[in-house]
Amino acid sequence: MTETPLHHLIKMLSALPGLGNRSARRIALYLLSRREDTMKPLAAALLAAAENIRDCRICGNLDTADPCAICCDPQRERTKICVVAQVGDLWAIERTGSYRGLYHVLGGLLSAIDGIGPEDLRLVSLERRSHDPACGEIILALSATVDGQSTAHLAADRIARTGLKITRLAHGVPVGGELDYLDEGTITTALQSRSAA
Amino acid sequence: MTETPLHHLIKMLSALPGLGNRSARRIALYLLSRREDTMKPLAAALLAAAENIRDCRICGNLDTADPCAICCDPQRERTKICVVAQVGDLWAIERTGSYRGLYHVLGGLLSAIDGIGPEDLRLVSLERRSHDPACGEIILALSATVDGQSTAHLAADRIARTGLKITRLAHGVPVGGELDYLDEGTITTALQSRSAA
Repeated sequence: MTETPLHHLIKMLSALPGLGNRSARRIALYLLSRREDTMKPLAAALLAAAENIRDCRICGNLDTADPCAICCDPQRERTKICVVAQVGDLWAIERTGSYRGLYHVLGGLLSAIDGIGPEDLRLVSLERRSHDPACGEIILALSATVDGQSTAHLAADRIARTGLKITRLAHGVPVGGELDYLDEGTITTALQSRSAA
Repeated sequence: MTETPLHHLIKMLSALPGLGNRSARRIALYLLSRREDTMKPLAAALLAAAENIRDCRICGNLDTADPCAICCDPQRERTKICVVAQVGDLWAIERTGSYRGLYHVLGGLLSAIDGIGPEDLRLVSLERRSHDPACGEIILALSATVDGQSTAHLAADRIARTGLKITRLAHGVPVGGELDYLDEGTITTALQSRSAA
């Protein structure tokens, strides 16, 4: 088959995370059967997002406004900054509705394999923010993986001299999780961090 | 969260077949981190495909040219027309490289649930094509489902009076398939259609 606009579209779709050739073909056919009410609006939505969404200069969140809606919200507690790797993690915490402080998006995790070093993360601005007298606690909400934990160590190191309270997410049994399916590391940690019933 | 261009984009992505909220968020973040080299080209590819891809007036295939490249290809055997439900099925047969005849895309299957009747399928043009003196065989390559088989019966009925050879795909054990995992219907058909070893 030659490279028609259709094959080009399928190739581009199949390069998206989580999509393969088969799902890309399926999506392309779906879109071509709904050109006016789905395909063209999707193209417009992509362009609108690419043009209007920017990184918040304070926390690194994605928003149409800069600083972002969270940084500008007078209702948010300015005493807490929750450090996350990606905007997706910020959204995950926002969906819980249980955190009302500020955020700091690092933009990734240290990774030797992917060649991501300290200079690729928003650590300088985190350090600057940690000097804000309003800030009383930095919560390191980074993944419990090797990359996540080495990033957490580095971030804690950078802000240690401010004497701020630095916390991390609790490790333990996920709510609704069955013990039988959990790995030994999680169960060990949950045992060590056990609390009064 | 209010309806920003980002949430609008995620909502549109999550409505695509095979994608949910989580995968749509992941794709949106991936695209926003590659705006110039992936996100804007994808929007352009969507628009280009929406504008330039059309249904072939002869067979219903999707292509930039009308009639499509297959209908115009002098190398294809004009004696055979392979009837398929969707363009995706045509692609699946083309990928085998084992068929060199023409196609006819019905545009769906009869479905009481989805309200698809005979008038929604390209049956009139199939009937017209079956009168072409060059055509010697109609291959009904429709799914082995209830909808597929009732559509095959209807199509065969419409072209029966031309006295053409009408064939259907063989049923049997898929190549590489394990008997143990096959349903009884397939094994019964494969037994009945057994051939000399």
